[in-house]
Amino acid sequence: MGVRKLYGSLDSPDTIRALASLNEHKLDFDFIPIDLKSGEHKREPFLSMSPFGDVPAYQDEQLTLFESRTVMRFISHCYFTPDNEQVYEDPRLQGIAAEWIDIEDHQFDPPASKLTWELVLKPKLIGQPPDSTVVAQEQLKLAKVLDIYEKRLAESNFLGGHKYTSADLTHLPGLYYLTGTPVDQLFEERPLVSAWKKSIMSRPGWKKVVAMIEGVQA
Amino acid sequence: MGVRKLYGSLDSPDTIRALASLNEHKLDFDFIPIDLKSGEHKREPFLSMSPFGDVPAYQDEQLTLFESRTVMRFISHCYFTPDNEQVYEDPRLQGIAAEWIDIEDHQFDPPASKLTWELVLKPKLIGQPPDSTVVAQEQLKLAKVLDIYEKRLAESNFLGGHKYTSADLTHLPGLYYLTGTPVDQLFEERPLVSAWKKSIMSRPGWKKVVAMIEGVQA
Repeated sequence: MGVRKLYGSLDSPDTIRALASLNEHKLDFDFIPIDLKSGEHKREPFLSMSPFGDVPAYQDEQLTLFESRTVMRFISHCYFTPDNEQVYEDPRLQGIAAEWIDIEDHQFDPPASKLTWELVLKPKLIGQPPDSTVVAQEQLKLAKVLDIYEKRLAESNFLGGHKYTSADLTHLPGLYYLTGTPVDQLFEERPLVSAWKKSIMSRPGWKKVVAMIEGVQA
Repeated sequence: MGVRKLYGSLDSPDTIRALASLNEHKLDFDFIPIDLKSGEHKREPFLSMSPFGDVPAYQDEQLTLFESRTVMRFISHCYFTPDNEQVYEDPRLQGIAAEWIDIEDHQFDPPASKLTWELVLKPKLIGQPPDSTVVAQEQLKLAKVLDIYEKRLAESNFLGGHKYTSADLTHLPGLYYLTGTPVDQLFEERPLVSAWKKSIMSRPGWKKVVAMIEGVQA
């Protein structure tokens, strides 16, 4: 049994963000499924780890963390090696990389999460069809965000800078869920965004996460 | 003229967060007001600094940043001195402090921002009264968040750990705007939250921000 544990659900984009970071850094961990349908995340003992009742929760021998972007930031700062260094030592370069984590959180995630719910999770988890008005509204919002991403990727290989960082990785849950939905077109229409999406989704650490999700679903 | 510039509005909680961080670290800077009413933040030249059209934007000789929590994180990592060190060197302690920045962002800020809009900014900026249904709903949400804060402050002097960090500072805009509104009672009812609020609002760096806001309004 490993010393690191991740408690969460493979139907939770936030859990998947933490899984992506653990795998990118080639860390051993135990994954402990939390049953969202029965509300296991809103009861003890889960609440002792994550007092707001949100998955995932990360635990090692010394600390517990429960915000997915915090888990990702912590792992990238604590476990960087020459192979998978996702942070910059220069605080200015790191400042820009960290900015793109907040941009994902505040600009990309709101429409991407709503689209993921409507197009993927709502039909799957509660058997209801997408609300087409919400889908249309959120696609418009996401398109505007992606226009700015296209400009950013014209000046930089990755969103956070010249190398792959958490600023890119943090987008993987949204990109994964929206692949195969009508939203794909928004990515495909923008050549640099499309190439970036393909590049970050082909990383070995991410492929392990996909195998995990699809293994459970198979 | 200083080398650092902050572009923003004193009616913007995000601008005030960045001002709090600059003043906590005793940094010189020029404040350049952006007129939100006329939409200056949605036009060039501001958009070149902040492509999503959000205030504030921070600029020094080497970089531009535009997410307020990014500006705060950057300043705390770049300019720490023994007097105002807001970060931990140990990545585990820093992980916990960083977690409480995300908690403010995802748990405290949504109800606090809606209450600030309804009770303070909406009457002031567009002359409309608060929507009492929204106020009641958001107060309930904020009360639940503050219950968890009360427990946290029973085990730790500050939210992020034993010392004052950005995890506390990031709450100042919400605490400031809600002081003097009916929401104050939610803070007062919780002794540790109430003592924490008084303590962080009495810091010299924060008092300079209040003097700036009230100087403009006077």
